[in-house]
Amino acid sequence: MGTTQLEAVQEPKYWHLKTVLNDALDSEFEVGEILPNERDLAARFGVARATLRQALEQLELEGRLQRRRGVGTTVAPPRMGVAVGPSSDVWPGAGRDAWRTIGCVEAVAPGSVAALLGTGPDETVHTIRRERVMQGQPVATELLYVPPVSVPGLSAMLSPAAHAPAVLRELHLLELEGEDRAVELGSARAEDAKQLDRLPGAPVLVVTTRYFAQGRVAAAAVATYRADTCRLTFGHSGAIEVTHHQPDSDRQAS
Amino acid sequence: MGTTQLEAVQEPKYWHLKTVLNDALDSEFEVGEILPNERDLAARFGVARATLRQALEQLELEGRLQRRRGVGTTVAPPRMGVAVGPSSDVWPGAGRDAWRTIGCVEAVAPGSVAALLGTGPDETVHTIRRERVMQGQPVATELLYVPPVSVPGLSAMLSPAAHAPAVLRELHLLELEGEDRAVELGSARAEDAKQLDRLPGAPVLVVTTRYFAQGRVAAAAVATYRADTCRLTFGHSGAIEVTHHQPDSDRQAS
Repeated sequence: MGTTQLEAVQEPKYWHLKTVLNDALDSEFEVGEILPNERDLAARFGVARATLRQALEQLELEGRLQRRRGVGTTVAPPRMGVAVGPSSDVWPGAGRDAWRTIGCVEAVAPGSVAALLGTGPDETVHTIRRERVMQGQPVATELLYVPPVSVPGLSAMLSPAAHAPAVLRELHLLELEGEDRAVELGSARAEDAKQLDRLPGAPVLVVTTRYFAQGRVAAAAVATYRADTCRLTFGHSGAIEVTHHQPDSDRQAS
Repeated sequence: MGTTQLEAVQEPKYWHLKTVLNDALDSEFEVGEILPNERDLAARFGVARATLRQALEQLELEGRLQRRRGVGTTVAPPRMGVAVGPSSDVWPGAGRDAWRTIGCVEAVAPGSVAALLGTGPDETVHTIRRERVMQGQPVATELLYVPPVSVPGLSAMLSPAAHAPAVLRELHLLELEGEDRAVELGSARAEDAKQLDRLPGAPVLVVTTRYFAQGRVAAAAVATYRADTCRLTFGHSGAIEVTHHQPDSDRQAS
């Protein structure tokens, strides 16, 4: 665990326990292994259960442990590197896209999204729900918002199944001038949590993408990534591909 | 608050309370205002204090509330947009850099960083601690790791004050071939927490950057951003600058 000089900082009790637990995970447990129950763990380390719980929560935040209803607490596999920034600007759903479309509705966008798109408070936008699966697990869910002005050629009469493909097809006719992203911490909304196999309120990484065309924001996407299993990667073109190792695991031999 | 069709998902009690509280924050409170104490709030909304605390924790995760020892719970200002990806590849400390150098030590890097750099388990690297301040607040702390092989011209005899500038100067002599980044959720280590004015274990966004030169990873940085106050932005060159609005605040008039 590093050797940077630590200043004399007052550490809460659970923090020390966390470090001890972390070492025990390294030396005694395999990925996927179920930890002993809280009572036994608290007894082993000579701490109160409240202290133990705080330490377990920390380790869950850091991606070392997974807690699942009905299973218990297991040692988490290394987080998956999930590429977020494409090497070249592409529209959602174009080319090799990691997302699967689930459906599309016309709805008023949330206030924050309406502000990005410049749409009015009662104006509906095409809202495409998509999901991203990696290694057989859902890692992200996304709502892609496309105002009608960005897809003027869209047929007015569309079956539900044809809606999303038609919106994406029209969107791809625009010349994409650029995109940018913001990443922040959030908590999973009920429908996202369900799709991601998490409880509502679980910590998530929220990625908001603005797609620019015709000198304005032509579409916006709000993607919700599982914070426990995902590491978001932003690669620059030209960067050499090197395996990214999990913090504090498999130290490389010189 | 959006109108996307919600499927019938079972929501925990605190989740509903969170929505109600969120609306109350919008309509009744100003940024910076101190909330009533937990007992009064629980009584007002007719919930148990445990339920109230869960809802407050959610709102803190989402950046709506700030809880500080000795102050209480206050309504948080909108998160600051903190630019992370530079528009062109630059070395740390070169040109217009948002970071301030605090110090430099020679130390063995943590296992995860050693794996990125390909350094041996007992090999020391130059470790520069930096911090980033925005609007008078510390928003991030960073450890920049530079193996000796990347700065071969470095003088062996350096005073502590000259150490960091000399390492950066030598590093800038290399041709930067690219960089990439990974963002993940973490919890603040004690010394980072102190620098960021947070408690140890507070949720943070950890940004790991690899700098490529001479066909390998020539330096690596691990930056810890406050997750409560920061939204990390990754801009592509050419993207139009548009004000990013806070989720669910100030809905734009048509």
